[in-house]
Amino acid sequence: METMTSTTSVISSQDLLAHWQGHRALTRRVIEAFPEKELVEFSIGGMRPFAQIVKELLALAAPGVKQIADGTVPQLDLEIAEAINKEMILALWDEATTAINQYWSMIPDERFQEKIMAFGAYEGTVISTVLYYIDNEIHHRGQGYVYLRALGVTPPDFYER
Amino acid sequence: METMTSTTSVISSQDLLAHWQGHRALTRRVIEAFPEKELVEFSIGGMRPFAQIVKELLALAAPGVKQIADGTVPQLDLEIAEAINKEMILALWDEATTAINQYWSMIPDERFQEKIMAFGAYEGTVISTVLYYIDNEIHHRGQGYVYLRALGVTPPDFYER
Repeated sequence: METMTSTTSVISSQDLLAHWQGHRALTRRVIEAFPEKELVEFSIGGMRPFAQIVKELLALAAPGVKQIADGTVPQLDLEIAEAINKEMILALWDEATTAINQYWSMIPDERFQEKIMAFGAYEGTVISTVLYYIDNEIHHRGQGYVYLRALGVTPPDFYER
Repeated sequence: METMTSTTSVISSQDLLAHWQGHRALTRRVIEAFPEKELVEFSIGGMRPFAQIVKELLALAAPGVKQIADGTVPQLDLEIAEAINKEMILALWDEATTAINQYWSMIPDERFQEKIMAFGAYEGTVISTVLYYIDNEIHHRGQGYVYLRALGVTPPDFYER
Protein backbone atom coordinates (compact mmCIF):
# COMPACT_ATOMS: atom_id res chain seq x y z
CA MET A 1 0.00 0.00 0.00
CA GLU A 2 1.26 3.46 -0.91
CA THR A 3 1.42 5.83 2.05
CA MET A 4 1.44 9.62 2.07
CA THR A 5 4.88 9.71 3.66
CA SER A 6 6.45 8.64 0.39
CA THR A 7 5.99 11.88 -1.54
CA THR A 8 8.60 14.13 -3.13
CA SER A 9 10.80 15.58 -0.45
CA VAL A 10 10.54 19.32 0.06
CA ILE A 11 13.76 19.12 2.09
CA SER A 12 15.94 16.13 2.88
CA SER A 13 17.14 15.21 6.35
CA GLN A 14 20.74 16.05 5.37
CA ASP A 15 19.77 19.46 3.97
CA LEU A 16 17.77 20.25 7.12
CA LEU A 17 20.80 19.38 9.26
CA ALA A 18 23.04 21.57 7.08
CA HIS A 19 20.47 24.36 7.36
CA TRP A 20 20.49 24.13 11.15
CA GLN A 21 24.27 23.88 11.41
CA GLY A 22 24.51 26.94 9.17
CA HIS A 23 22.33 28.78 11.68
CA ARG A 24 24.39 27.38 14.55
CA ALA A 25 27.60 28.67 12.94
CA LEU A 26 26.00 32.12 12.79
CA THR A 27 24.90 31.90 16.43
CA ARG A 28 28.49 31.01 17.32
CA ARG A 29 29.69 34.21 15.60
CA VAL A 30 27.06 36.19 17.54
CA ILE A 31 28.41 34.73 20.82
CA GLU A 32 31.94 35.64 19.73
CA ALA A 33 30.86 39.20 18.88
CA PHE A 34 29.81 39.91 22.49
CA PRO A 35 32.27 41.65 24.79
CA GLU A 36 33.21 39.12 27.51
CA LYS A 37 31.51 40.91 30.42
CA GLU A 38 28.34 41.87 28.54
CA LEU A 39 27.83 38.31 27.31
CA VAL A 40 27.04 37.23 30.86
CA GLU A 41 25.65 40.47 32.29
CA PHE A 42 24.01 42.75 29.74
CA SER A 43 20.25 42.69 29.29
CA ILE A 44 17.36 44.86 28.09
CA GLY A 45 13.86 45.09 29.56
CA GLY A 46 14.44 42.42 32.20
CA MET A 47 15.31 39.72 29.65
CA ARG A 48 18.07 37.20 30.24
CA PRO A 49 21.70 37.97 29.43
CA PHE A 50 22.79 36.31 26.16
CA ALA A 51 24.91 33.70 28.01
CA GLN A 52 21.77 32.40 29.71
CA ILE A 53 19.86 32.37 26.44
CA VAL A 54 22.69 30.36 24.86
CA LYS A 55 22.53 27.96 27.80
CA GLU A 56 18.86 27.31 26.89
CA LEU A 57 19.85 26.66 23.26
CA LEU A 58 22.54 24.22 24.45
CA ALA A 59 20.07 22.51 26.80
CA LEU A 60 17.66 21.89 23.91
CA ALA A 61 19.81 21.10 20.88
CA ALA A 62 22.09 18.09 21.44
CA PRO A 63 19.93 16.48 24.18
CA GLY A 64 16.86 17.06 22.00
CA VAL A 65 18.43 15.39 18.95
CA LYS A 66 19.76 12.54 21.12
CA GLN A 67 16.20 11.84 22.31
CA ILE A 68 15.01 11.69 18.69
CA ALA A 69 17.88 9.36 17.80
CA ASP A 70 17.88 6.92 20.73
CA GLY A 71 14.79 7.66 22.84
CA THR A 72 16.63 8.94 25.92
CA VAL A 73 14.31 11.46 27.63
CA PRO A 74 16.58 14.34 28.71
CA GLN A 75 16.17 16.76 31.59
CA LEU A 76 15.99 20.43 30.61
CA ASP A 77 19.22 21.70 32.16
CA LEU A 78 19.15 25.51 32.33
CA GLU A 79 21.66 25.79 35.20
CA ILE A 80 24.58 28.02 34.37
CA ALA A 81 27.96 27.70 36.09
CA GLU A 82 28.84 30.79 38.10
CA ALA A 83 32.26 30.94 36.48
CA ILE A 84 30.85 30.70 32.95
CA ASN A 85 32.71 32.69 30.33
CA LYS A 86 32.85 33.06 26.57
CA GLU A 87 35.54 30.45 26.07
CA MET A 88 33.57 27.84 28.03
CA ILE A 89 30.36 28.67 26.17
CA LEU A 90 32.08 28.35 22.78
CA ALA A 91 33.59 25.01 23.84
CA LEU A 92 30.13 23.73 24.84
CA TRP A 93 28.78 25.03 21.54
CA ASP A 94 31.39 23.11 19.52
CA GLU A 95 30.78 19.96 21.55
CA ALA A 96 27.06 20.25 20.76
CA THR A 97 27.82 20.73 17.05
CA THR A 98 29.61 17.37 16.96
CA ALA A 99 26.96 15.63 19.05
CA ILE A 100 24.11 16.91 16.85
CA ASN A 101 25.86 15.61 13.70
CA GLN A 102 26.47 12.26 15.35
CA TYR A 103 22.93 11.71 16.66
CA TRP A 104 21.29 13.13 13.52
CA SER A 105 22.98 10.46 11.39
CA MET A 106 21.16 7.84 13.51
CA ILE A 107 17.67 9.24 12.70
CA PRO A 108 15.86 7.35 9.93
CA ASP A 109 13.85 9.58 7.56
CA GLU A 110 10.55 7.93 8.56
CA ARG A 111 10.98 9.08 12.15
CA PHE A 112 10.37 12.75 11.27
CA GLN A 113 6.61 12.14 11.01
CA GLU A 114 6.42 10.16 14.28
CA LYS A 115 4.98 11.58 17.51
CA ILE A 116 7.33 12.51 20.31
CA MET A 117 7.05 13.91 23.84
CA ALA A 118 10.14 16.14 23.80
CA PHE A 119 11.88 16.35 27.17
CA GLY A 120 8.99 14.27 28.51
CA ALA A 121 6.76 17.34 28.34
CA TYR A 122 6.26 18.81 24.85
CA GLU A 123 4.07 16.84 22.47
CA GLY A 124 4.58 17.08 18.73
CA THR A 125 5.96 15.32 15.70
CA VAL A 126 9.69 14.89 15.35
CA ILE A 127 9.78 17.41 12.50
CA SER A 128 7.75 20.03 14.43
CA THR A 129 10.09 19.49 17.39
CA VAL A 130 13.25 19.91 15.30
CA LEU A 131 11.80 23.03 13.66
CA TYR A 132 11.02 24.34 17.14
CA TYR A 133 14.65 23.92 18.20
CA ILE A 134 15.84 25.73 15.07
CA ASP A 135 13.22 28.50 15.24
CA ASN A 136 13.81 29.03 18.95
CA GLU A 137 17.50 29.56 18.23
CA ILE A 138 16.79 32.09 15.46
CA HIS A 139 14.29 33.88 17.72
CA HIS A 140 16.67 34.22 20.65
CA ARG A 141 19.63 35.07 18.43
CA GLY A 142 17.50 37.93 17.05
CA GLN A 143 17.38 39.22 20.63
CA GLY A 144 21.17 38.93 20.75
CA TYR A 145 21.40 41.17 17.68
CA VAL A 146 19.52 43.92 19.55
CA TYR A 147 21.79 43.52 22.57
CA LEU A 148 24.84 43.88 20.30
CA ARG A 149 23.43 46.97 18.55
CA ALA A 150 22.55 48.50 21.93
CA LEU A 151 26.19 47.87 22.95
CA GLY A 152 27.44 49.58 19.79
CA VAL A 153 28.73 46.30 18.30
CA THR A 154 27.99 45.49 14.65
CA PRO A 155 26.56 41.94 14.59
CA PRO A 156 27.55 39.39 11.91
CA ASP A 157 25.43 39.42 8.74
CA PHE A 158 22.23 37.41 9.17
CA TYR A 159 22.38 36.01 5.63
CA GLU A 160 25.95 34.67 6.11
CA ARG A 161 25.89 31.01 7.19
CA MET B 1 15.87 5.83 -13.13
CA GLU B 2 15.33 6.52 -9.46
CA THR B 3 16.34 10.04 -8.46
CA MET B 4 17.31 11.35 -5.03
CA THR B 5 14.41 13.80 -4.99
CA SER B 6 11.97 10.92 -4.52
CA THR B 7 12.88 10.05 -0.93
CA THR B 8 10.74 10.03 2.18
CA SER B 9 9.58 13.54 2.90
CA VAL B 10 10.95 15.09 6.07
CA ILE B 11 8.25 17.76 5.75
CA SER B 12 5.51 18.15 3.17
CA SER B 13 4.78 21.34 1.26
CA GLN B 14 1.45 21.72 3.09
CA ASP B 15 3.04 21.25 6.52
CA LEU B 16 5.75 23.80 5.67
CA LEU B 17 3.07 26.31 4.66
CA ALA B 18 1.15 25.64 7.90
CA HIS B 19 4.41 26.06 9.83
CA TRP B 20 5.05 29.45 8.20
CA GLN B 21 1.47 30.66 8.59
CA GLY B 22 1.67 29.67 12.26
CA HIS B 23 4.72 31.91 12.57
CA ARG B 24 2.92 34.65 10.62
CA ALA B 25 -0.04 34.49 13.01
CA LEU B 26 2.41 35.00 15.88
CA THR B 27 4.08 37.93 14.10
CA ARG B 28 0.61 39.45 13.66
CA ARG B 29 0.07 39.25 17.42
CA VAL B 30 3.46 40.89 17.99
CA ILE B 31 2.42 43.78 15.69
CA GLU B 32 -0.87 44.07 17.61
CA ALA B 33 0.98 44.14 20.94
CA PHE B 34 2.87 47.32 20.02
CA PRO B 35 1.50 50.66 21.20
CA GLU B 36 0.42 52.60 18.07
CA LYS B 37 3.09 55.31 18.27
CA GLU B 38 5.96 53.02 19.25
CA LEU B 39 5.21 50.65 16.38
CA VAL B 40 6.33 53.31 13.91
CA GLU B 41 8.82 55.25 16.05
CA PHE B 42 10.51 53.18 18.75
CA SER B 43 13.94 51.71 18.15
CA ILE B 44 17.03 50.49 20.00
CA GLY B 45 20.68 50.92 18.99
CA GLY B 46 19.89 52.62 15.69
CA MET B 47 17.83 49.70 14.38
CA ARG B 48 14.64 50.22 12.39
CA PRO B 49 11.29 50.74 14.10
CA PHE B 50 9.17 47.56 14.03
CA ALA B 51 6.80 49.00 11.39
CA GLN B 52 9.72 49.26 8.96
CA ILE B 53 10.88 45.75 9.80
CA VAL B 54 7.35 44.48 9.11
CA LYS B 55 7.41 46.32 5.80
CA GLU B 56 10.49 44.27 4.85
CA LEU B 57 8.68 41.06 5.81
CA LEU B 58 5.70 42.10 3.67
CA ALA B 59 8.00 43.00 0.77
CA LEU B 60 9.54 39.53 0.82
CA ALA B 61 6.71 37.12 1.66
CA ALA B 62 3.85 37.32 -0.84
CA PRO B 63 5.95 38.70 -3.75
CA GLY B 64 8.57 36.03 -2.98
CA VAL B 65 6.05 33.19 -3.07
CA LYS B 66 4.41 34.63 -6.20
CA GLN B 67 7.81 34.48 -7.95
CA ILE B 68 8.19 30.83 -6.97
CA ALA B 69 4.68 30.09 -8.20
CA ASP B 70 4.54 31.98 -11.51
CA GLY B 71 8.06 33.27 -12.22
CA THR B 72 7.29 36.99 -11.86
CA VAL B 73 10.49 38.67 -10.65
CA PRO B 74 9.38 41.19 -8.01
CA GLN B 75 10.98 44.46 -6.98
CA LEU B 76 11.99 44.67 -3.32
CA ASP B 77 9.59 47.38 -2.14
CA LEU B 78 10.77 48.72 1.23
CA GLU B 79 9.03 52.11 0.89
CA ILE B 80 6.75 52.88 3.78
CA ALA B 81 3.82 55.29 3.49
CA GLU B 82 4.25 58.34 5.70
CA ALA B 83 0.74 57.86 7.10
CA ILE B 84 1.34 54.19 7.94
CA ASN B 85 -0.38 52.98 11.09
CA LYS B 86 -1.11 49.71 12.87
CA GLU B 87 -4.48 49.18 11.20
CA MET B 88 -2.97 49.59 7.72
CA ILE B 89 -0.08 47.27 8.57
CA LEU B 90 -2.44 44.58 9.87
CA ALA B 91 -4.59 44.89 6.74
CA LEU B 92 -1.51 44.43 4.53
CA TRP B 93 -0.51 41.46 6.70
CA ASP B 94 -3.88 39.75 6.21
CA GLU B 95 -3.79 40.43 2.49
CA ALA B 96 -0.37 38.77 2.33
CA THR B 97 -1.67 35.76 4.30
CA THR B 98 -4.31 35.12 1.65
CA ALA B 99 -1.89 35.74 -1.23
CA ILE B 100 0.71 33.35 0.21
CA ASN B 101 -1.88 30.56 0.54
CA GLN B 102 -3.09 31.18 -3.00
CA TYR B 103 0.34 31.20 -4.66
CA TRP B 104 1.68 28.35 -2.51
CA SER B 105 -1.05 26.04 -3.81
CA MET B 106 0.33 26.63 -7.33
CA ILE B 107 3.84 25.37 -6.42
CA PRO B 108 4.50 21.76 -7.45
CA ASP B 109 6.54 19.73 -4.92
CA GLU B 110 9.38 19.20 -7.40
CA ARG B 111 9.99 22.93 -7.64
CA PHE B 112 11.43 23.15 -4.12
CA GLN B 113 14.73 21.66 -5.30
CA GLU B 114 14.99 23.96 -8.35
CA LYS B 115 17.35 26.93 -8.56
CA ILE B 116 15.93 30.42 -8.31
CA MET B 117 17.27 33.99 -8.41
CA ALA B 118 14.99 35.51 -5.79
CA PHE B 119 14.05 39.12 -6.53
CA GLY B 120 16.46 38.87 -9.47
CA ALA B 121 19.39 39.08 -7.05
CA TYR B 122 19.60 36.25 -4.51
CA GLU B 123 20.63 32.85 -5.82
CA GLY B 124 19.51 29.67 -4.10
CA THR B 125 17.15 26.75 -4.30
CA VAL B 126 13.45 27.34 -3.84
CA ILE B 127 13.52 25.56 -0.47
CA SER B 128 16.52 27.56 0.78
CA THR B 129 14.74 30.74 -0.35
CA VAL B 130 11.49 29.86 1.42
CA LEU B 131 13.39 28.95 4.58
CA TYR B 132 15.17 32.30 4.32
CA TYR B 133 11.84 34.16 4.23
CA ILE B 134 10.62 32.21 7.28
CA ASP B 135 13.89 32.51 9.23
CA ASN B 136 14.21 36.21 8.43
CA GLU B 137 10.73 36.75 9.88
CA ILE B 138 11.58 34.83 13.08
CA HIS B 139 14.87 36.75 13.36
CA HIS B 140 13.29 40.19 13.03
CA ARG B 141 10.31 39.26 15.21
CA GLY B 142 12.82 38.31 17.92
CA GLN B 143 14.00 41.92 17.71
CA GLY B 144 10.39 43.02 18.12
CA TYR B 145 10.21 41.01 21.36
CA VAL B 146 13.10 43.04 22.79
CA TYR B 147 11.44 46.31 21.72
CA LEU B 148 8.22 45.23 23.49
CA ARG B 149 10.08 44.22 26.67
CA ALA B 150 11.98 47.51 26.62
CA LEU B 151 8.59 49.26 26.36
CA GLY B 152 7.28 47.29 29.34
CA VAL B 153 4.86 45.26 27.18
CA THR B 154 4.63 41.49 27.67
CA PRO B 155 4.97 39.90 24.21
CA PRO B 156 2.82 36.95 23.10
CA ASP B 157 4.19 33.49 23.91
CA PHE B 158 6.72 32.33 21.32
CA TYR B 159 5.50 28.71 21.39
CA GLU B 160 1.87 29.74 20.67
CA ARG B 161 1.14 29.58 16.92
